Amino acid sequence: MSALDALTTPALLVDAAALDHNLDAMSAALPGARLRPHVKAHKSTQLAKRQAARGHLGFTCATLREMEGLAAAGLGADLLLANEVLDARRLGVLEARVTLAVDSHETIEAAVAGGVREVLIDVNVGLPRCGCAPAEAGPLAALARRRGLEVRGVMGYEGHAMGIVDRAQREALVEESMRLLRTAHADVGGEVISAGGTGSYDCNASASEIQAGSYALLDTAYAGLGLPFRPALSLLATVVSLSATYAVADCGLKALGMDHGNPRIDGARVLFCSDEHVTFAPDGAAFGVGDRIRVWPAHVDPTVAYHEKMHVVADDAVIETWAVDLRGW
Amino acid sequence: MSALDALTTPALLVDAAALDHNLDAMSAALPGARLRPHVKAHKSTQLAKRQAARGHLGFTCATLREMEGLAAAGLGADLLLANEVLDARRLGVLEARVTLAVDSHETIEAAVAGGVREVLIDVNVGLPRCGCAPAEAGPLAALARRRGLEVRGVMGYEGHAMGIVDRAQREALVEESMRLLRTAHADVGGEVISAGGTGSYDCNASASEIQAGSYALLDTAYAGLGLPFRPALSLLATVVSLSATYAVADCGLKALGMDHGNPRIDGARVLFCSDEHVTFAPDGAAFGVGDRIRVWPAHVDPTVAYHEKMHVVADDAVIETWAVDLRGW
Repeated sequence: MSALDALTTPALLVDAAALDHNLDAMSAALPGARLRPHVKAHKSTQLAKRQAARGHLGFTCATLREMEGLAAAGLGADLLLANEVLDARRLGVLEARVTLAVDSHETIEAAVAGGVREVLIDVNVGLPRCGCAPAEAGPLAALARRRGLEVRGVMGYEGHAMGIVDRAQREALVEESMRLLRTAHADVGGEVISAGGTGSYDCNASASEIQAGSYALLDTAYAGLGLPFRPALSLLATVVSLSATYAVADCGLKALGMDHGNPRIDGARVLFCSDEHVTFAPDGAAFGVGDRIRVWPAHVDPTVAYHEKMHVVADDAVIETWAVDLRGW
Repeated sequence: MSALDALTTPALLVDAAALDHNLDAMSAALPGARLRPHVKAHKSTQLAKRQAARGHLGFTCATLREMEGLAAAGLGADLLLANEVLDARRLGVLEARVTLAVDSHETIEAAVAGGVREVLIDVNVGLPRCGCAPAEAGPLAALARRRGLEVRGVMGYEGHAMGIVDRAQREALVEESMRLLRTAHADVGGEVISAGGTGSYDCNASASEIQAGSYALLDTAYAGLGLPFRPALSLLATVVSLSATYAVADCGLKALGMDHGNPRIDGARVLFCSDEHVTFAPDGAAFGVGDRIRVWPAHVDPTVAYHEKMHVVADDAVIETWAVDLRGW
């Protein structure tokens, strides 16, 4: 254990109690294989081990590096790369059970050429990203089987529904998406219907497994949905400059994913972020040069990806430091 | 040399010819010590060595890690940390000439406590970020000298003028800012007036040295200013999925700084970025699954900070690979 004060800022902090709460709450709702945690949100094998210890032995990945890192950490019991690749050779050599998403004849051929043995047919359920049209799923599954691949089932990510604040609207869009996925699954077969995320973990009854990842650390975007998870990820920053009307801390846009907008600071209004600074207007609270403050990121995933490590804290002490060892590609 | 096709995507590419053009053009305009290149924009000691080889032996940094990295690479002849810190101990032990920005009695005490010997008084010239009020500069310089520090002069970054497209407006705001800095300098003394950036390198006649960094690699934001520098930084991506109306490539918001908005793709209209994907509408051009494309980032600095390395390319071959070794804090 070491004191929080000893950390160089900006530093990524994980609140141990909030993390444990989130992991426990999700495991209670989706025990064991009902959850396939997505590691893209935290990129840490140490955090993945906490998820595995709660009985979630299969993981979802977005990159080859995440697959390799989990396999090397002994977490390769059932790894899904929920993403298309055109060169799968790094997957074929992994000492792990590997399943790869495919959505075209090119990605099926890449799986074969790379030595991958198991695939899911990735179906577009409404988000304009990867995935074949639902009607193409059956023919692609047949092609994959002809090419010697084991087709475990389908996946389809209803990402366009994930951030909708109104619960009824969110549920309706999840159901509309899953109707498409069920149709595709009827044509494809297999045991797996992999879908969902933190925003639909409790209203997606169609999926055999949910790919949630953000629930572990949360962010200000997901915190607005009224889910039973707590913000666990913040940045420790130091106030480095002060004027009559604003203060400046050393946590800028190279320490924060900015696609969801500015971070939040308790007791202050964030004005803007520069490369290494956040300028904010104290909102009642008094700030002094040298003060340590907490900055709450709007989007966890691209925030974590900027950092080498995260410090697990309890009672203003660092109890563990985890490498963010799944970064890069 | 190796073929571009062999790279895992997304990969950060530096066009060798464009980089050389940019470095040469800037060195012709601001030779030797007239330019103090800011390394925050590229975070690579290999690129800094190219700048030093053109006669720019002093460097500007934004972080302790950048200072340490340059010193370790033998580039420590004259390093300026153009940023405030409350713990300067990592600077005091560097084998380098170190100058630190200070803007308060707290940061002056931190410089003393950390063993730093030389400082610049950082003056707010209009950008609401660090820097003391111009009238405070003289008293702070006096305090610093009483505390045994060598005050080399002043710095003041007119960042609020940097992106203004209209040249006359930009020049007027630069002049207004530099009037404040000259006033402060008259009270502070010393040889150094450090200011400016890529947007003001040719219209800031007050500064004794210009802190430009973005000129080396450029980005789509700076490319709109009509400066004589060329976009040199792009991302190599692979088209991984295709639908009737859009395509998807494997270069998302974990590979791109997003604070300036979406990247650009030649021959296409970018629709949105996800963690590991960019979805775009082909605009006449035809794209196929497996195609390699170039993605042009809107903001170089936070883009580079996501990557471990950059590949210098000429004629579709990788001629060198440089570590982005100044990342982190």
